Amino acid sequence: MRVGILGGGQLGRMLALAAAPLGHECVIFAQSGDEPACAVARSVLGAFDDDDALARFAGSVDVVTYEFENVPLAAVEGLAAHVPVRPGARSLVVASDRVHEKTTFRELGIATAPFRAVDDEASLREAVRAIGLPAVLKTRRLGYDGKGQRVLRTEADLDGALASLGSVPSILEGFVSFQRELSILGVRALDGTIATYPLVENVHRDGILFRTTAPAPHVSAPLADEARAAIASLLTELDHVGVLALELFDRDGALLANEIAPRVHNTGHFSIEGAHTSQFEAHIRAITGDPLASTALRGHSVMINLVGAIPARASLLALPHAHTHLYGKAPRPGRKVGHVTINADDPETVRTETSDVIAIVAQARDILAG
Amino acid sequence: MRVGILGGGQLGRMLALAAAPLGHECVIFAQSGDEPACAVARSVLGAFDDDDALARFAGSVDVVTYEFENVPLAAVEGLAAHVPVRPGARSLVVASDRVHEKTTFRELGIATAPFRAVDDEASLREAVRAIGLPAVLKTRRLGYDGKGQRVLRTEADLDGALASLGSVPSILEGFVSFQRELSILGVRALDGTIATYPLVENVHRDGILFRTTAPAPHVSAPLADEARAAIASLLTELDHVGVLALELFDRDGALLANEIAPRVHNTGHFSIEGAHTSQFEAHIRAITGDPLASTALRGHSVMINLVGAIPARASLLALPHAHTHLYGKAPRPGRKVGHVTINADDPETVRTETSDVIAIVAQARDILAG
Repeated sequence: MRVGILGGGQLGRMLALAAAPLGHECVIFAQSGDEPACAVARSVLGAFDDDDALARFAGSVDVVTYEFENVPLAAVEGLAAHVPVRPGARSLVVASDRVHEKTTFRELGIATAPFRAVDDEASLREAVRAIGLPAVLKTRRLGYDGKGQRVLRTEADLDGALASLGSVPSILEGFVSFQRELSILGVRALDGTIATYPLVENVHRDGILFRTTAPAPHVSAPLADEARAAIASLLTELDHVGVLALELFDRDGALLANEIAPRVHNTGHFSIEGAHTSQFEAHIRAITGDPLASTALRGHSVMINLVGAIPARASLLALPHAHTHLYGKAPRPGRKVGHVTINADDPETVRTETSDVIAIVAQARDILAG
Repeated sequence: MRVGILGGGQLGRMLALAAAPLGHECVIFAQSGDEPACAVARSVLGAFDDDDALARFAGSVDVVTYEFENVPLAAVEGLAAHVPVRPGARSLVVASDRVHEKTTFRELGIATAPFRAVDDEASLREAVRAIGLPAVLKTRRLGYDGKGQRVLRTEADLDGALASLGSVPSILEGFVSFQRELSILGVRALDGTIATYPLVENVHRDGILFRTTAPAPHVSAPLADEARAAIASLLTELDHVGVLALELFDRDGALLANEIAPRVHNTGHFSIEGAHTSQFEAHIRAITGDPLASTALRGHSVMINLVGAIPARASLLALPHAHTHLYGKAPRPGRKVGHVTINADDPETVRTETSDVIAIVAQARDILAG
């Protein structure tokens, strides 16, 4: 099958690398041929409002998917008139609007922090009265990796807060003091079959994912069941086809849903080595109408993101259980340029090599900072 | 690094898929853009005697490797004047000439079947006198997948035998009645470090590899040591950089070397899922000067080649531990179009799903034959 991927980033690149063994040919829709995915597949270059380029793209593929949720809805709807787009526009619409997203959680009985839509100063103050402080003010759309949000601790913090986010439609969320962040990935096939990966534990630094541990330690059976039920109900509700990620807070052993991503997800990168079927293969199988396969884990994994700098290559590659993935991107501050997954059957081996990887990564940061 | 690969077949494709995560950009030298590797990397198109195309290729990469040993020596030597070619010409020369190859085995103390070079009718008859019958007459060069050879059982079989192979330089080998075929893969880094994969067991059908089992069952420690020592001495003797495959016969528990391939090898395809580092990644690490990584196995694997026809896709993909790899080639009789690796920690799961895969493959053959 010819699989079209909207977006040329590392997620598109890893999707294309997973699609090839299944016999598919990928076509990347990218803005520039230098984007990471363009080195491993054919591409159509253009902007998301370039109707000619989009038409050429639609004409060259049998199915379209996307690697990020901020792809313009108009582009997706235009393509969907000519070729199946999976996941569908509904997943995109819900995932790209925090109020819509959290309302959907609530409707499905999935617990969240308290929230209110904020459109102006008046609704901001009303939301603060209802929720209390501290609270987090976020833009409804286009926020990722910690951008587009502001923590409000005192009444004084309200002044100018909305303006600092660009006075765009926003959301106020109650500040959750949680013990840890978890996430779960699920995938739904074209025939509605669902498979889920186990819960993983995530640590962020400077608002960017730094580390994922798979499986998450200390997960009780009821907690695992609750997470699986949540992602399954979301997949079904959205009529989602493909991988869906759900980020969660663990507060005293109870789960609060934070947000979804209607695509393969950074917290699922470990699955390339750490599961029988990677999230990338799972997504490709789903959108092309193939049956799903085993999402069971293989051993223990830790994934470390490489952000801003590529660490000493030879040191990383010399670690026997560390699998290095570089995206072919020029390093720049805050930019994800690769990741390393440490995978072994024995958790002690994973722990030891993870320390080694973190030391190597820290050294690269120090060189950068110095 | 920019990695050039001579040849656009499935081996080049899987090399390119393994090179991308390491941050390398591959350039394929192929005769046609339809070749399997061209869908997953940039390419330079041309024939192996097209000096302009070869010069363009050499100018666009930092290191060159090859995916088959019948690449013309002149092309390799021409490229090597401009860019490192790994493995070097010596590996290619030895591997592409059966007499040279077996002489090298003997010089290193690696046991082989008795053999004699055959250049004409006189030397054929002399070789038969020395070795006895039955024996196998093979061309010295360009034989693969059972082509270019002839079994001689009686004196009468000698008449016209050499002519039937085209009266080219040949070799007569004593007929070995062995219990099974084994192979071992080794890899040598630029700094001379060597790593080896465990012995695997191979079954051929119609002269084409049908099935590989990893690890090979019933391998004694001395047998394993002997195989490891053999591949290590070959890697060092050839000053080989990259993966080298050694095919062996197991005759009553003693090993006889059959042939080498100076490249990634069909009997190593299982390693994509069945080892910590696949043979493809191992080869790329070696030729780019990176350190090697763990070649230890992960669980049990069986690899089944898909030859001549692509079996019922959905049936194959529904098996939870079967990993299907399709090469993007149009099926035609005798052509390898893909492979399936069944991998699990539990050998019983592998056995059961292997039976399922073989049944699905047989069905495709029957449809083809019907």
